[in-house]
Amino acid sequence: MTSDEARALDRHDTLAPFRDRFVVDQPGLIYLNGNSLGRLPKATAERMREVVEQEWGCDLIRGWNRSWYEAAVRIGEKVAQLVGAAPGQVILSDSTSVNLFKLVLAALELRPDRNRIVSDTLNFPSDLYVLQSCVRLLGGRHHIHLVPSEDDISISLEALHDEIDEQTALVTLSHVAFKTGFCHDAAAITERAHEVGALVLWDLSHSVGVVPTELDRWGADMAVGCTYKYLCGGPGAPAFLYVRRELQERVLSPVWGWFGQQAPFEFDLTYQPAEGIRRFLVGTSPILSLLALEPALDLVLEAGVQAIRAKSVRLTSMLVDLMDEVLVPLGFALGSPRDPDRRGSHVSILHPEAYRINRALIEEMNVLADFREPNLLRFGLAPVYTSFTDVWQAVDCIRQVVETGHYRSYSPQRQPVT
Amino acid sequence: MTSDEARALDRHDTLAPFRDRFVVDQPGLIYLNGNSLGRLPKATAERMREVVEQEWGCDLIRGWNRSWYEAAVRIGEKVAQLVGAAPGQVILSDSTSVNLFKLVLAALELRPDRNRIVSDTLNFPSDLYVLQSCVRLLGGRHHIHLVPSEDDISISLEALHDEIDEQTALVTLSHVAFKTGFCHDAAAITERAHEVGALVLWDLSHSVGVVPTELDRWGADMAVGCTYKYLCGGPGAPAFLYVRRELQERVLSPVWGWFGQQAPFEFDLTYQPAEGIRRFLVGTSPILSLLALEPALDLVLEAGVQAIRAKSVRLTSMLVDLMDEVLVPLGFALGSPRDPDRRGSHVSILHPEAYRINRALIEEMNVLADFREPNLLRFGLAPVYTSFTDVWQAVDCIRQVVETGHYRSYSPQRQPVT
Repeated sequence: MTSDEARALDRHDTLAPFRDRFVVDQPGLIYLNGNSLGRLPKATAERMREVVEQEWGCDLIRGWNRSWYEAAVRIGEKVAQLVGAAPGQVILSDSTSVNLFKLVLAALELRPDRNRIVSDTLNFPSDLYVLQSCVRLLGGRHHIHLVPSEDDISISLEALHDEIDEQTALVTLSHVAFKTGFCHDAAAITERAHEVGALVLWDLSHSVGVVPTELDRWGADMAVGCTYKYLCGGPGAPAFLYVRRELQERVLSPVWGWFGQQAPFEFDLTYQPAEGIRRFLVGTSPILSLLALEPALDLVLEAGVQAIRAKSVRLTSMLVDLMDEVLVPLGFALGSPRDPDRRGSHVSILHPEAYRINRALIEEMNVLADFREPNLLRFGLAPVYTSFTDVWQAVDCIRQVVETGHYRSYSPQRQPVT
Repeated sequence: MTSDEARALDRHDTLAPFRDRFVVDQPGLIYLNGNSLGRLPKATAERMREVVEQEWGCDLIRGWNRSWYEAAVRIGEKVAQLVGAAPGQVILSDSTSVNLFKLVLAALELRPDRNRIVSDTLNFPSDLYVLQSCVRLLGGRHHIHLVPSEDDISISLEALHDEIDEQTALVTLSHVAFKTGFCHDAAAITERAHEVGALVLWDLSHSVGVVPTELDRWGADMAVGCTYKYLCGGPGAPAFLYVRRELQERVLSPVWGWFGQQAPFEFDLTYQPAEGIRRFLVGTSPILSLLALEPALDLVLEAGVQAIRAKSVRLTSMLVDLMDEVLVPLGFALGSPRDPDRRGSHVSILHPEAYRINRALIEEMNVLADFREPNLLRFGLAPVYTSFTDVWQAVDCIRQVVETGHYRSYSPQRQPVT
C-alpha cells in the first residue's frame, strides 16, 4: 500500500469529518494513543470554559441544582447507550478500580457459598490488585484463578470454560485486553458462567465506544469501564459502572456515602440505600472532570458505534497488513490477534528493541504510541479522529528509525513513567 | 454597627486585596456559602484553559510525564502545609467518603482486639454512613458509639472522654461540625484517645484552610478532608488524606489499585504496596478536577492560615453580634457556639421559617446561604473573599425579608436539592 492509497481511503471515509471536531492542529504529530488518552474535542474545550467560568465562577452553589447534581446519572444514560444497556443501569462514579472494588464485593456477597473467582493473565493488573484486596478483606477464603495465555496474545475460550465451575462465584475479565487487544467472546463467557450459577463482571475500559458491547443482550451482571480512552473524557475522567436491573435491589454497595443515600439532604444519621443504581454512588463527584466527558459522549453517539467499529476493523487490519509487508522483514512480530473479530481497536507489535524504537519515534518522528514492557509497541486507533494516513505514516516512521538504526542512539535505560 | 462601620473594617483589612483575586463580579450577589463551594480564583480560570487546551489538547499523553503523574503527591504537599503535616504524609485521592472508608478499615486492622468506634451526632452523615458500611463489611463485630449533643450545637469534651475507653479502636470526628460550626478540641481528644491506645482520624473538611489544624503536633493518626469548601478547589474537587509517617509502613489500604502499586508501569500481576503514603492511592485521579485545586492552594498559602483565622474570628463574631442586635428581636436564635475558640468559620442561625426565609433571600435579595433541615440558615464566611460589608448586608437583607413578611409568599414545600 502506498501513501496515496491511504489518502484515498481517507477521502472515502464517512467518519473523516469527525476529525475536525477535535483539536488536531499540532503540526506533524501522529497520535496513536487513543486507547490511553483520547484527544480533546473542540466542544469540550468550549464547554469547560463555560463550566469553570460561568457555572462555577458565577452560578456558584446554584450549579448543583442546575446541572451538577444529576450529572452522574444523566451522563450514565449516555454511556448506557454505548454499552447496550437499557436506562437506569449505568452511573458515572469514582475510578474504574474503586468501582470494580465495589462491584466485586457486592457480587461475592450474592454468592456466599462459593469461593472461586476466575480471571485471566491478560487482565489489567489494577483489576487483579483490586481482586487481591477484596480477597484479603474477606479473610482469604476466596481463590483467584487466572487462566494463562498460551500464546501471550489471547485466552482460549475452552480453557476459560474449564475454569468456570460450580464453585465459581464470579468471572471478571477485561473485554479487550490492555496489552494485546485480544477481545473475549463476552456473550459465550457470560452464558457459560450463568450455566453454573456464577456472576459475570466485565471491564469495558478498552472496548467502550469502539467495540460494540451489549451488556443487556449478553445478560451481563455487572460492568465497569474507563472514559478517558476511546470516550475522550479527559485525563482521569470518572469511570462508569453497570449493575443489571434485576440485581440492583438485591445488592448493597460495600462503601456507603451520602450520594448513595436515599435522601442525602435530609442528613439522617443512618444509611438507607438509594433506589436502583444510585446506591453505588459514594461521595461528591469531581464535577469538572465529570462534565468534561459529556461533549465527547455526544460526539461518539452521533458517529455511532457500528460505524466506528467498521472503521476500526479497517484501520487495525491495515496496520496488521502493513506490519506484515514492511515491519516483519525488520524483525517485528504481531502481538495482537489476526482475527478482527477477536481484536479491539489497538494493535501491538513486538520487537526486542521496542523501548528504544519508541523513544526515537517520539523524539525524531513526532509519533506518539505506547511502549509496554518488555518488547511491545501499542497503537490505539480511534476511528473518530485517526486517519488511514496516520497509520500509513506511523509504519513508515517505524521503518525509518529501524532501517537507519537511529534508535540505537537512545539509552535502553527506562524513563520513570511512560 | 452601621454599614459605614462595616466598610471601615474592610478598608483596614489586610486580606481585602485577596478578594480581587477571585471572580466576584456578579452584580449584587452576596455569597456566603464558602463552606459549601468556594469561589473561583481568577488564576484557576486561566490555569484550566491551559490544562484543557494545552496540556490535554496538545501535550496529550505527554502530560502524564510533565505534571499529571506527580500531581496527587505534589498538591498533597501543599495541603500538608495547611494542616500542619511534615512532608510525605498527605496525598490527594478519591472523595472524602472513599478516603475515610480506606482509613477506617486500615485503622481497625491496627487494633484487631478492639471493637468500639467513637464518633458524635454532629458528624457529617456521610462519615457515619462510611462507618456503618465498614462495620457491616467486617461482619458486624464493631459498635459505633455516637456521643450526643446536649444543646444541639456542641459536644461536651467530658462526655466524649468518657466514651473513649480501652475497648476503643478508633475515634473519628469532624474537626468542625458541618451544621453548627462547633470546633472540637482536637489536641485534647487525640491525647485522650492515645492514653487508652485508641487511634484518631480527623475529618478536616470544614476546617482546612480556615481553622489552624496541626495534625503532627496533635499526634493525629489519620485525617481526611474536602478541598472544595474553603480551599476553593472547585465542585467535587478530589479529597486529601493524611497518615502519620510512623504508621504508613504498618498499614495497607483496603483498596488496591495501580496508582498505589510499587511500580505501576511494570504491570506485575501481584500487588506490592508503594512506599509510604502513595499506597493509599487507588486508580487514576481526575486530573482536570485535581489540577483546578492548585492555584487556590497557592493563594491560601500566600494569605496564610493564621491571618485567615484572625479575620474569620472577626467575621463570625461580627455576625453573632449583629444577630443578637438585629435578628434575635425577629425570632432568630444562634445555632453555633458563642466562644470563637470553639467555632469554625461558619455561623448558623435558627428560625422556624428558615426554609422560606432562605428562598426569599435567594430570589429577592441575591443572598446565597445554605438552608439545612429543619430550621437552620448557615453562613460560611471565607476570609479570602468575604468582606465585612457582605456580612452586614446579609443581616440587613434577612431583616428586610422577615420584617416585611415577604418570605411568606414562598411555599414551605422543599425543592428537591439545595
